[in-house]
Amino acid sequence: MKFYDCSTAPSPRRERIFLAEKGINVPTVQVDLRNNEHLTPAFRAINPDATVPVLELDNGTRITDAIGICVYFEAAHPQPPLRGEGAEDKAVIAAWQRSAERNGFYAVMEALRNSTPGLKGRALPGPDDYEQIPALAERGRARIGRFFEQMEARLAQSEFVAGARYSIADITTLVSVDFARWVKLSVPEECTNLRRWHAEVSARPSAKA
Amino acid sequence: MKFYDCSTAPSPRRERIFLAEKGINVPTVQVDLRNNEHLTPAFRAINPDATVPVLELDNGTRITDAIGICVYFEAAHPQPPLRGEGAEDKAVIAAWQRSAERNGFYAVMEALRNSTPGLKGRALPGPDDYEQIPALAERGRARIGRFFEQMEARLAQSEFVAGARYSIADITTLVSVDFARWVKLSVPEECTNLRRWHAEVSARPSAKA
Repeated sequence: MKFYDCSTAPSPRRERIFLAEKGINVPTVQVDLRNNEHLTPAFRAINPDATVPVLELDNGTRITDAIGICVYFEAAHPQPPLRGEGAEDKAVIAAWQRSAERNGFYAVMEALRNSTPGLKGRALPGPDDYEQIPALAERGRARIGRFFEQMEARLAQSEFVAGARYSIADITTLVSVDFARWVKLSVPEECTNLRRWHAEVSARPSAKA
Repeated sequence: MKFYDCSTAPSPRRERIFLAEKGINVPTVQVDLRNNEHLTPAFRAINPDATVPVLELDNGTRITDAIGICVYFEAAHPQPPLRGEGAEDKAVIAAWQRSAERNGFYAVMEALRNSTPGLKGRALPGPDDYEQIPALAERGRARIGRFFEQMEARLAQSEFVAGARYSIADITTLVSVDFARWVKLSVPEECTNLRRWHAEVSARPSAKA
């Protein structure tokens, strides 16, 4: 088994935290995104999508999606459960994970990729080149503000994002909040519940992953 | 239990097909999206996100996300499995489902919502109003073309989207391909494998859902 990672990138960080919470070690290969190693023919032969993370199983199957890889490890190593136990719990966690990804993670990605000079022509991850759209960067920034408000409201009612237990929804939310710093946005002072939660989940050893 | 649906909308169609494949009947409430019923205070009290589908459980919990609802029914009614069995199978299916959603479903949504006169100021679903970005509509159309190519390549190698069995990845792909007609894009003649697959999955009784 082999895990293709990039230690500075937010998307594989979701995996690293997930693995740390489960206490799983996987042999890791670093892919140098900063020097466009993911766009080389050699890496595209591993993942035509030209993204990390990638998990390569011993039989050669490659899982090329951050959540797909979590699905693999949750099934192979159920304890501690990070995707829930029982129909309702699993569904609530999946819904919050997706909400944080859509409104948080993707919003930061939009803001960053559509404004950073070094990402000109790379407005989307993946094999294809798309021009930056400045209006989309602006919309991404507005959406990050709304994401902070939404999570503040949620965490005023709930200890963790998807309920009483730490889950994959907390991982996506943590990575999104930290990723927002890349576009110089951070949780406003008045979001006291989001700040309380952020301090707590950041103090877990897995957050260093 | 109560399922909030809109019989003409693609997002809850994913649910309807999923339920039909499992042979599950759920009492259904139609929400009239065309007349903006989802934006009324009454519906926002049910789902602050102002979207369908929503599944309301008997204990009052509401699942407000299309995949979250599938997660619920897969756990509550495992047969036939639509999200896979065993770690590898589950992971591969999740990765393809997400790929089809990102590159297919979201691309159509971008193309449609950023160009349709009736959706002015509603460039994203959800509670917030965002202006249309014409360049994003154009990018969405380009991405749909790439999605067709990607699925053609995949279905040249595989009977169904995620392998030898029909799964939730086929449902997302089918709904995305049909949704593309809303922006007047359809599978090119030369995509013979995608066309073969589309005819097959469209002939299943669930496709009428």
